[in-house]
Amino acid sequence: MSTDETTTSAPHSGPDMDPEEFRRYGHQVVDWIAEFIAHPERHRVLPDVRPGDTSARLPASPPEHGEGMDAILRDFGDVIVPGLTQWNHPGFLAYFANTASGPAILGEMLTAALNNNAMLWRTGPSATELEERALDWLRQMMGLPAGFHGTIQDTASISTLVAVCAARERVGLDIRDQGMSGRDLPRLRLYCSREAHSSVERAGIVAGIGRAGTRTVETDAEFRMDPAALERAIVEDLAAGVKPFCVVATVGTTSTTSIDPVPAIADVCERHGLWLHVDAAYGGAAAVVPEMRWVMEGCERADSLVVNPHKWLFVPMDLSALYARDPQAIRRAFALLPAYLVTSEGAGVTNLMDFGPALGKRFRALKLWMTLRYFGAQGFAERIREHLRLARDFAAWIDADPAWERMAPAPFSLVLYRHRPSGMADDALDAHNERLMDAVNATGEIFVSHTRVHGRFALRLAIGNLRTDARTIARAWRILRDAAASVG
Amino acid sequence: MSTDETTTSAPHSGPDMDPEEFRRYGHQVVDWIAEFIAHPERHRVLPDVRPGDTSARLPASPPEHGEGMDAILRDFGDVIVPGLTQWNHPGFLAYFANTASGPAILGEMLTAALNNNAMLWRTGPSATELEERALDWLRQMMGLPAGFHGTIQDTASISTLVAVCAARERVGLDIRDQGMSGRDLPRLRLYCSREAHSSVERAGIVAGIGRAGTRTVETDAEFRMDPAALERAIVEDLAAGVKPFCVVATVGTTSTTSIDPVPAIADVCERHGLWLHVDAAYGGAAAVVPEMRWVMEGCERADSLVVNPHKWLFVPMDLSALYARDPQAIRRAFALLPAYLVTSEGAGVTNLMDFGPALGKRFRALKLWMTLRYFGAQGFAERIREHLRLARDFAAWIDADPAWERMAPAPFSLVLYRHRPSGMADDALDAHNERLMDAVNATGEIFVSHTRVHGRFALRLAIGNLRTDARTIARAWRILRDAAASVG
Repeated sequence: MSTDETTTSAPHSGPDMDPEEFRRYGHQVVDWIAEFIAHPERHRVLPDVRPGDTSARLPASPPEHGEGMDAILRDFGDVIVPGLTQWNHPGFLAYFANTASGPAILGEMLTAALNNNAMLWRTGPSATELEERALDWLRQMMGLPAGFHGTIQDTASISTLVAVCAARERVGLDIRDQGMSGRDLPRLRLYCSREAHSSVERAGIVAGIGRAGTRTVETDAEFRMDPAALERAIVEDLAAGVKPFCVVATVGTTSTTSIDPVPAIADVCERHGLWLHVDAAYGGAAAVVPEMRWVMEGCERADSLVVNPHKWLFVPMDLSALYARDPQAIRRAFALLPAYLVTSEGAGVTNLMDFGPALGKRFRALKLWMTLRYFGAQGFAERIREHLRLARDFAAWIDADPAWERMAPAPFSLVLYRHRPSGMADDALDAHNERLMDAVNATGEIFVSHTRVHGRFALRLAIGNLRTDARTIARAWRILRDAAASVG
Repeated sequence: MSTDETTTSAPHSGPDMDPEEFRRYGHQVVDWIAEFIAHPERHRVLPDVRPGDTSARLPASPPEHGEGMDAILRDFGDVIVPGLTQWNHPGFLAYFANTASGPAILGEMLTAALNNNAMLWRTGPSATELEERALDWLRQMMGLPAGFHGTIQDTASISTLVAVCAARERVGLDIRDQGMSGRDLPRLRLYCSREAHSSVERAGIVAGIGRAGTRTVETDAEFRMDPAALERAIVEDLAAGVKPFCVVATVGTTSTTSIDPVPAIADVCERHGLWLHVDAAYGGAAAVVPEMRWVMEGCERADSLVVNPHKWLFVPMDLSALYARDPQAIRRAFALLPAYLVTSEGAGVTNLMDFGPALGKRFRALKLWMTLRYFGAQGFAERIREHLRLARDFAAWIDADPAWERMAPAPFSLVLYRHRPSGMADDALDAHNERLMDAVNATGEIFVSHTRVHGRFALRLAIGNLRTDARTIARAWRILRDAAASVG
């Protein structure tokens, strides 16, 4: 960050930064952010650094005496920023692209200054009520029926862990109180498709279900869970004395954005009394577009559902929304009340600490509320619709070029593809496309990632940043073709 | 927030807020924060609202069309702020008081705008390396030996959950892969004192240990875990076929800030091969004061230790530092690598997603690094030393006044006390002090909380905000005595 060398800060003697000093540097930081947003081309998306490069430029020990903000901001600009992958860059087309939008950044600034911790209603009355209201707005925008109650978690991994713990408790084996080992309990089984996010398996690990307790169900040719295979697995497990307890369906898988057939899966869950959790961390956002509402079909029958506003709803990390049809099922799995947290409001209010593994509760709702208001429901729909359109365009270019190949359907804003030059042997394609990806990312102009589809290396192009536009995608297509020619 | 009515924002047509619009509102928000910091007296610490008051002022549905930032910021000021408990207020003396310091707020602003997600080294090289370096600085400041490796979690609850999962895995029963139920496993046992934070019990619930699997050990007259009682419990459990696996000791308990005898507890853990986790979420901060370093005695023998910079190290929620002597023990409990996250750096780098339950990783290290540099190691020590001094002063006033009674030792910056007017029957004291607390909090000038000590209602006065000074504490003492006179 370039700072005004003539205003080197005096040694700070007060207990905290003086308000006027905060004002001065706050304006400077805001100006830096405005420039950062206005001129993304000044920053590489994927930095040109090797492991240890940044560490080598950071002192091994903390300073004994305080330093001035000028020096700190200068190092931020010189040492930290050039070593960062720029997730808020329009050329970020990797993983799931996302946005720290203007109103959301303003919200984060206020959240930081207020430092509210709404663990109890009493410790953040308006923060608690705003969280419930903002999540209810989002529920309406996605077309989930009334009655689904939302709480904010940090990430989808934690939302899914919360759902798995609630499901585990609803089995009625008193696991919350009695635990899982040293008792005559059946093995518990959690189901998801082989395309599900690793957070499902990780939730199983944390919750004592174990990797073997998470059974991956086969998928069809379009990477969607096969409900018949799910039912066969459940019946087989029941016959073997295993206790099925939860199914995780995905609306928009991470690898290919496939959509599990939630209505048929809900039928299976109903027949066997299983908790249905839907991972719509990415895909749920699309439901704010009326003509995409269909992706949520069947989700109204889920017990819980996660959607991540920090993925495709324009708020920065972290903010994951967990909806539950019976919020008391979550409370039953988690609530504990030590003496020092008893308040006179008693059970008449929502205490957010009851709805997840963490006690402390950052005021995340503020940025969501400000962003929902700034863009409005239609504004969200228009922007996501545009991302869908850009992905369709890119997919069409791939489809029209015989040297390139689509690797999976693209129901959302992610396209999977690879370069397939005529004459290249099949078994050379993986290495070729990996080299191609490295060449593309080395430009620093765009950043694309990869996955494996049916075992084959596939490139991913994900659209989700608000400043990614038609020109960005056209440039990406040119960079990809240039790289293909050069690594050919 | 008061906004300039003449600059009502035009309808926004671009995909995101225009950089110039961001600059304008960014400056406005910075100015608001500067005023908020400069004039805390304009805000009640505990708001004067009843459940539902805020909800009633929030529309039931999201706006169809986007709104201008002026209207949003106006509602923020009119509806949200008056309903908030002001955790960043010098009169906040409840729970554990904390601070969103100036440099940390600036750090959060940049974190929000960058929106970095350092799940992999590749997706945030400098964020990853800065996290390791900043936590190593803090390790040195607390006097923990080299070799302890730090990672950032959101809250101490999650840090402790991570430690419990690592400990569970080190038992060698292959729980990560095989799970806990439907196998011939012994009941696992986790130990902590009866004064330990509820997050230990909650970690046990999540990890399938169960509430009954967490055994609370007796404490001495000063609320410290009795190591002989711990050993007896372990021996008794072993004889009954129960498998002890982890002990959580606390340096600065939540209720009374007692300090468990970690050296003796470490002896017990060593004898029985148990994982020792130290919850120093609050108390660890005091170790940056050289003459308080003793509070960490024995912690060098812990397997893991948590300290929360967002408690008493001047960064806002959320930032919890988890240290482990063998970071691979954490990795073994959590690491999973889906195809779409394989990178060419391979195992040569730290991928932060491997060290906890969440995949996504907000760039929390930035605010810590900026704050550590701004105040410096000695600056931290001076400020915490001052908080300790203020607490000693207040405790001395309580001790000197026959109408008041100390309820526990005060090794840190928390004082426990109650009003005990001469002639009042013992069994009336609880209700009397609760009324007194309500009267104090109703002033809106300070906010104090309570706990129970040996079953008796005790008031807590916690010092941890940088702007809390001698005048604040003198005023608190006056308000308490006035309230005692009025509810008498």
